[in-house]
Amino acid sequence: MSDPQHLVIVEHDVEGHATGFVEADPELPQLRVTDVAATRGDGVFETISLGAGHPQALDAHLERFARSARMLDLPVPDAGIWADAVRTLAEHLADHDEAWVKIVLTRGVEGQPMPTGWAFGTVSPDFRRERTEGIDVVLLDRGLRSDVMRTSPWLLAGAKSLSYAINRAAAREAARRGADDAVLVSSDGLLLEGPTSTLVVRRGDELLTPPVEHGILPGTTQVDLFAAAPEWGLHGRVASLTPDDLLAADGAWLVSSVRHAAPLRSVEGCSLPVDGGLSAAMNGFLRGRRA
Amino acid sequence: MSDPQHLVIVEHDVEGHATGFVEADPELPQLRVTDVAATRGDGVFETISLGAGHPQALDAHLERFARSARMLDLPVPDAGIWADAVRTLAEHLADHDEAWVKIVLTRGVEGQPMPTGWAFGTVSPDFRRERTEGIDVVLLDRGLRSDVMRTSPWLLAGAKSLSYAINRAAAREAARRGADDAVLVSSDGLLLEGPTSTLVVRRGDELLTPPVEHGILPGTTQVDLFAAAPEWGLHGRVASLTPDDLLAADGAWLVSSVRHAAPLRSVEGCSLPVDGGLSAAMNGFLRGRRA
Repeated sequence: MSDPQHLVIVEHDVEGHATGFVEADPELPQLRVTDVAATRGDGVFETISLGAGHPQALDAHLERFARSARMLDLPVPDAGIWADAVRTLAEHLADHDEAWVKIVLTRGVEGQPMPTGWAFGTVSPDFRRERTEGIDVVLLDRGLRSDVMRTSPWLLAGAKSLSYAINRAAAREAARRGADDAVLVSSDGLLLEGPTSTLVVRRGDELLTPPVEHGILPGTTQVDLFAAAPEWGLHGRVASLTPDDLLAADGAWLVSSVRHAAPLRSVEGCSLPVDGGLSAAMNGFLRGRRA
Repeated sequence: MSDPQHLVIVEHDVEGHATGFVEADPELPQLRVTDVAATRGDGVFETISLGAGHPQALDAHLERFARSARMLDLPVPDAGIWADAVRTLAEHLADHDEAWVKIVLTRGVEGQPMPTGWAFGTVSPDFRRERTEGIDVVLLDRGLRSDVMRTSPWLLAGAKSLSYAINRAAAREAARRGADDAVLVSSDGLLLEGPTSTLVVRRGDELLTPPVEHGILPGTTQVDLFAAAPEWGLHGRVASLTPDDLLAADGAWLVSSVRHAAPLRSVEGCSLPVDGGLSAAMNGFLRGRRA
């Protein structure tokens, strides 16, 4: 018995404006092989979690979707239409405590002026083990300096593009080394982010996360966590972090829309303290969001 | 009146082996939105030129296709089936002097074991201006050191993956600067390749091209050119090259399967000598290949 899947196609006119959306069958082919989504990873996306049918951090996701689109010189997505598309799928998935919707905007079929857009939703995997026991991570070189976003914007550092083969390869390399996930490091030795998550490090009563200016995604889950941090006697701050900072931390998490907060149990084989109570509080808060 | 387009879908079994191919309609949707080609750029490709229906450098392309697949931990493509697929499309396009076929292998639909494969063919654009008058290029930082292929294979440097958003962004940046194309440079200052082409530099009676070990694609067109070089009193050699080497060159080309050899007329606004006779000879040779 397979998970429920739902799809809407977001339609666009020749000027790149969204005109509306229609429901479609996710089991049927919907894309042409000449869509640059499929041939060049030339588009942007977001993955939005649903808590019992409520899209979580939707505004932040739509803002980041627009930011990525601008970085790729794509038409800026219509926030109203995309929000409605997400809410339509959310209604279909309202019986599930945890589900997610992926929204995608591509430059479209080669030689045609219209972008291609869709939103796809299904239920979330069970991440209880990762959230409670924690995960083992390795540090992997991202190859880029921490200033490339400023010096070399065409490298698209910090854009959530469809060109995610490297993120997948980093995850496979982590698995090959016996780990669950990776933390990427800039070529000048600064901690960046996970392949599909934001790094949050606890030092005393502070939660720290690396600066977006280092060429990483602005974390939508991390922002919500930092806003809630005072409930747990903590406050959030952006800070440059090194591998040594991580190894000396009082705790660390990779946070993301669907898995929520996964505490790091070890980094490169060195144990990190896992605060089960705090992790549970974080995940309870993230899971319980209704906006 | 639009160009003729032809498509075959290469079918695979659950063990990842190709079982054959069927013709399909390229105007119709053929891919599901959950294919990782469309959501993660997670696959590999090759573009093979056809000279009056003859696939050019087919063996070299299929070898590179397999090399890229290995780098992405994909099933190794069946050279015989893919060659037959290319030849089937080539027959449809045999009335055209210049055409091309793109072959694509992806990790498939999320959660399913079969890879997705297809081959798409159409006629080539008219590149006479680029081949005769030459092109203006800018130098763009690739952000990666020239040794990342060895130190950090998960960055997939040198794999022809579907994650090509950066290549497209580099081409847009070149256009923004008033140029036709770009030559990418490693963060340690070595010339690499074009976003969709191989760099060839002439110095005296030598044709030089950067080493594959610097994290670039092995050039299929460049290999054929080097094999033919003695006809023009030249010999080919692999060599590390810097921007100064390019500016002091006796000539330079970006060579690729479909555009063939485009001489560089200027680099960063500094003129380079364009040898019209040699460029014409190169392009005549490349266009005339029947294997």
